[in-house]
Amino acid sequence: MKARDGRGGAVVLLSGGMDSATSLAVARRDEPGPLRTLTLSYGQRHVRELRAARALARHFSVSEALELMVPFAPLAPSAITGKGALPRDRSTRTMGRGIPSTYVPGRNTVFLALALSLAESRRSDAIYLGINAVDYSGYPDCRPEYLRAFQRLASLATARGVKEHWTPRLVAPLLRLSKEEIVRLGERLQVPWEKTWSCYAGEARPCGRCDACRLRALGFRKAGVADPLARTRS
Amino acid sequence: MKARDGRGGAVVLLSGGMDSATSLAVARRDEPGPLRTLTLSYGQRHVRELRAARALARHFSVSEALELMVPFAPLAPSAITGKGALPRDRSTRTMGRGIPSTYVPGRNTVFLALALSLAESRRSDAIYLGINAVDYSGYPDCRPEYLRAFQRLASLATARGVKEHWTPRLVAPLLRLSKEEIVRLGERLQVPWEKTWSCYAGEARPCGRCDACRLRALGFRKAGVADPLARTRS
Repeated sequence: MKARDGRGGAVVLLSGGMDSATSLAVARRDEPGPLRTLTLSYGQRHVRELRAARALARHFSVSEALELMVPFAPLAPSAITGKGALPRDRSTRTMGRGIPSTYVPGRNTVFLALALSLAESRRSDAIYLGINAVDYSGYPDCRPEYLRAFQRLASLATARGVKEHWTPRLVAPLLRLSKEEIVRLGERLQVPWEKTWSCYAGEARPCGRCDACRLRALGFRKAGVADPLARTRS
Repeated sequence: MKARDGRGGAVVLLSGGMDSATSLAVARRDEPGPLRTLTLSYGQRHVRELRAARALARHFSVSEALELMVPFAPLAPSAITGKGALPRDRSTRTMGRGIPSTYVPGRNTVFLALALSLAESRRSDAIYLGINAVDYSGYPDCRPEYLRAFQRLASLATARGVKEHWTPRLVAPLLRLSKEEIVRLGERLQVPWEKTWSCYAGEARPCGRCDACRLRALGFRKAGVADPLARTRS
């Protein structure tokens, strides 16, 4: 019924990176209802990601692909919105220490809140997000206990919750996967890696040196998969 | 110390209405550190509110008055962003029933998330919001249990939380006050009512018929206070 009446289904937070692309592929596999992607533009350096998100939404034939501009930069300076230097050439051991300069205060909370708004108004059942608490993260809003707290909040925040006891399912299919496992999962689900974009630097080609590039390379190498984007650099 | 080094203080969510103006006045009275207001423009009919917010921020000499455009309308249609008719001439008994068409799905969650981002990046200690669960409300995201859930989330969501065990204080000074009590409190704190704006309709003068106008009139009448904005209508 859910698939037929255009209701149900899921909202998928889609940045255009390899993680959110894989999360979208999992939603495509598991959700019978319509998929709606929400891509947030927030003054990040890598607008190239937005183009990737559009290509991925088309590839997975989503019912609605929304893009919203959320002006984060005046709220919360971060290396990802152009304040301060991007970290380069860091080892994964270094990355695993502390909270990186690419952390944007409150970002996932804002993104989840907007996804909740969309899920309530479109009557979606679930919200997918590609966050990951393993390999390297350091982001406080990628932890399982953070997700549980948002799940609790979401059950109280909406009119649908009051009227129908609706609680959206928060689904974070990559939460406990390593980058290597994410690549393997994406391979099985035929994620078009060439359409994704990970690099933080915002240049024409991936820089190969920022944390995102290095983690991506590590994941592909360990999984024994060739990254089509890396090939274009040589 | 907090007042002297420019840290501490509070972020105040300021819409420009009488409730958020009173909440700002309470913050001015109670917080020794700098106040920063955050006003969200989200395609509401009543852009007049934004002008009111600017005037109030000046009046209370805040250290920083931020305005952000958050495009809610494509996410979540609501009577308040121009979809569907505004309710008019409703009795407070009718208003007290159910969830009104001016409800914007997920709005307070998005607003609080943005305030959290600002509070973390500016090292504010508290977040003030003018929500109210008495007289009439019907909004799910104005309930005390909703606030508690956000407080829990906020304690897990930030880098400052991880590094310094920081939890912002969520302060909702009007949560359990009637409209009459809000007017009395605002009078004591010398809120400049003539600078506030409540009407949803977005015309040059308050319409006097929408829920916001009717509740405002009720509050002033019961408190025995003359509303300077109402005088301009006669």
